[in-house]
Amino acid sequence: MRDQPKVIIIGTGFGGLEVARGLAGAHVRVLLLDRNNYQTFWPLMYQVATAALEPQAIAFPVRGVIRRMRNLLFRVVTVQQIDLARQLVVTDRGTLTYDELVVSAGSTNNFFGLQGIEQQGFGFKDLPEALVLRNHVIQCFERAATEMDAHERERLRTFIVVGGGPTGVELAGALAELVRHVIRRDFPRLDISAAKVLLVEMADRLLLAFPEELSRKAAQDLRELGVDVRLRTSVTGYQEGELRIKDGDVIPTRTVVWAAGVQASPLAKALGVPLQRGGRVPVTRSLHLEGYPNVWVIGDMAYLEDPDGQPYPQLATVAMQQGKLVSRNILRKQQGRALDPFQYIDKGSMATIGRRRAVAHIWGRNFSGPIAWLLWLAVHLLYLIGIRNRIMVLINWAYNYLTHDRGARATIAARPRDATQV
Amino acid sequence: MRDQPKVIIIGTGFGGLEVARGLAGAHVRVLLLDRNNYQTFWPLMYQVATAALEPQAIAFPVRGVIRRMRNLLFRVVTVQQIDLARQLVVTDRGTLTYDELVVSAGSTNNFFGLQGIEQQGFGFKDLPEALVLRNHVIQCFERAATEMDAHERERLRTFIVVGGGPTGVELAGALAELVRHVIRRDFPRLDISAAKVLLVEMADRLLLAFPEELSRKAAQDLRELGVDVRLRTSVTGYQEGELRIKDGDVIPTRTVVWAAGVQASPLAKALGVPLQRGGRVPVTRSLHLEGYPNVWVIGDMAYLEDPDGQPYPQLATVAMQQGKLVSRNILRKQQGRALDPFQYIDKGSMATIGRRRAVAHIWGRNFSGPIAWLLWLAVHLLYLIGIRNRIMVLINWAYNYLTHDRGARATIAARPRDATQV
Repeated sequence: MRDQPKVIIIGTGFGGLEVARGLAGAHVRVLLLDRNNYQTFWPLMYQVATAALEPQAIAFPVRGVIRRMRNLLFRVVTVQQIDLARQLVVTDRGTLTYDELVVSAGSTNNFFGLQGIEQQGFGFKDLPEALVLRNHVIQCFERAATEMDAHERERLRTFIVVGGGPTGVELAGALAELVRHVIRRDFPRLDISAAKVLLVEMADRLLLAFPEELSRKAAQDLRELGVDVRLRTSVTGYQEGELRIKDGDVIPTRTVVWAAGVQASPLAKALGVPLQRGGRVPVTRSLHLEGYPNVWVIGDMAYLEDPDGQPYPQLATVAMQQGKLVSRNILRKQQGRALDPFQYIDKGSMATIGRRRAVAHIWGRNFSGPIAWLLWLAVHLLYLIGIRNRIMVLINWAYNYLTHDRGARATIAARPRDATQV
Repeated sequence: MRDQPKVIIIGTGFGGLEVARGLAGAHVRVLLLDRNNYQTFWPLMYQVATAALEPQAIAFPVRGVIRRMRNLLFRVVTVQQIDLARQLVVTDRGTLTYDELVVSAGSTNNFFGLQGIEQQGFGFKDLPEALVLRNHVIQCFERAATEMDAHERERLRTFIVVGGGPTGVELAGALAELVRHVIRRDFPRLDISAAKVLLVEMADRLLLAFPEELSRKAAQDLRELGVDVRLRTSVTGYQEGELRIKDGDVIPTRTVVWAAGVQASPLAKALGVPLQRGGRVPVTRSLHLEGYPNVWVIGDMAYLEDPDGQPYPQLATVAMQQGKLVSRNILRKQQGRALDPFQYIDKGSMATIGRRRAVAHIWGRNFSGPIAWLLWLAVHLLYLIGIRNRIMVLINWAYNYLTHDRGARATIAARPRDATQV
């Protein structure tokens, strides 16, 4: 076994885990690395941020996935450097050598230099951030209940989501429903019209990747839920509880959630090659680094253009299909066969807006309303890993749907010490 | 309504919430105060610490309980001072006046001056502490997997629980099962006998409040699960990964959990009366402060001796019965009737040790094994608040029982910022 090629996979997101699955049982030794011991099912993260789900329901322990994969080891480490020349990965727990390297460390928030939002707003790229946001939103209402100053009360009750892509749309809709169904009953003396949810988008429509009809439908649904949808609106700064808009307008708020852009993981820089827009790493059609046939980059980190010259979107489906291809290409190379090129099969896109409201573009057709919503529920349950997580999510959904309640609104947080503790 | 007496209840634990329930609908205005927006069902906290349950399953949002109580308001505040003479409660969000005051702020860790344990060990008195412990235990195994130093590996895999009461017994048993069933499968290359769980108790038997027969049974059960039970063993210090024992023995470990003592909430000192052992506040048989017929103290904070001259134990059942009595006494006083004295109805005690293993002393009889375990399951499900929490716990238990797995082992933690954020 010692002479089998050693594959290191960095990152256990949708892409990395797919590579691991494809290499399970093959004649390679695989070492899977991640900062966390779990995979996050981030399409449902907005439900954690709005108290509809507990974080464990959408976090799956990596060791649970790989238990049956005998040729695979998993290590919780932070990757610090990559040395392509000497084929080394430097981590906080030692240096590792590889024969094949798969880099799939995903993406992180891109604040485009808006420091005020980076420091005082809320990112929304991982579960800890979703938890911080959940606790903050609920604490804003608790604070408002004891706040004497009317201006501060208004700031506490105004929630702004920046970015009208699927993440922003889903989060804004869920926040509006949280206010409408849960906060209204939790704070019977609160004038519910005093609580505002705004969705701010630079372009002239939401969901740019969807057909225009669905963009219109989504905006209409959100407005019916009470969301103030502002199109053609750029954010220029955020400070001291005031969000500044390009036209000079100022919105008082204590909550600005950033869903307006991502950039590749900073690990991309460690590869030492020229990067593309958003810090993404250009790869060949076979998904390896130009000049390095044993270094593969996939998912949100990879930059590859489709036949129309557009980069493939930073989506879970792209990452998973790329992961599958890389595992196949690694094995093909071993067998002396030619590498396969990446061919993306677009499975469509969907976004949920609220109870019985969603939009979906699948099989070239547009869906909205309850049908799209049921499709959305089914697809997300299907893609969740593990029977336990599926049961937990299903029961939470049933409970939330039937009671209009959100059970996970206790603002539990591990103490700061947690971050530094062994 | 303005001329109705105003009752302030500090603390939404088992005692405080029971007072609130008893006053719901009565001719009083009630203001309920707590630092958190949730009640913790702490009898199941050890299951959160050992990845068997997610924290939200045993946290119930206070506003969910009080929704139907029209004469009740709830505020998330930290109480800083109490002025008995002027009938004021000073909080971080303003000063409040009261006609009747119920102090039920519970208890906190008592490290008896062992600073090493306080600073480097783990308390186990609230959900954030349970989460920190869970993440730490799992990270210890992850660390051990990449640790080159054999001594450090041993420290990382040695888990010590100090205190052989129900909390310590349940935690040690659950840790042993976590190692035995989950860690063994998660780390197939780990020699499982290298992982140690120790339970250290000063007295000559575990579960001092139980009949001796059950103490012996509990120790035997724990030993069968692989726990190293050390009786007549005092801890004298903890530093740099070494726990010191009175006889001079030293045990290398990175995990010392303190379950060996509690003291009344520091708020007891704010009352300005002489305190009893453990910082508890002496109260009359009617449960008010001597000389202050409108200041009631209940639960872990209160000191009252039973007819045999022993203080009532710091248990949920005592707090709940005291809470019920105080709400009744407040209403009796309003009606000009004499106050009732506290009469404790001992409903028995139980502790679970592991799968199909528990001990219970109920109706004057001793139970152990599967019967005690089923009794324990039923009682704890019954006392949990809310249908959602019951379903979540039941499903988790069924899953854990059938699969020998623990689903909640993703080491998710909100970032430090969370602690200071609005």
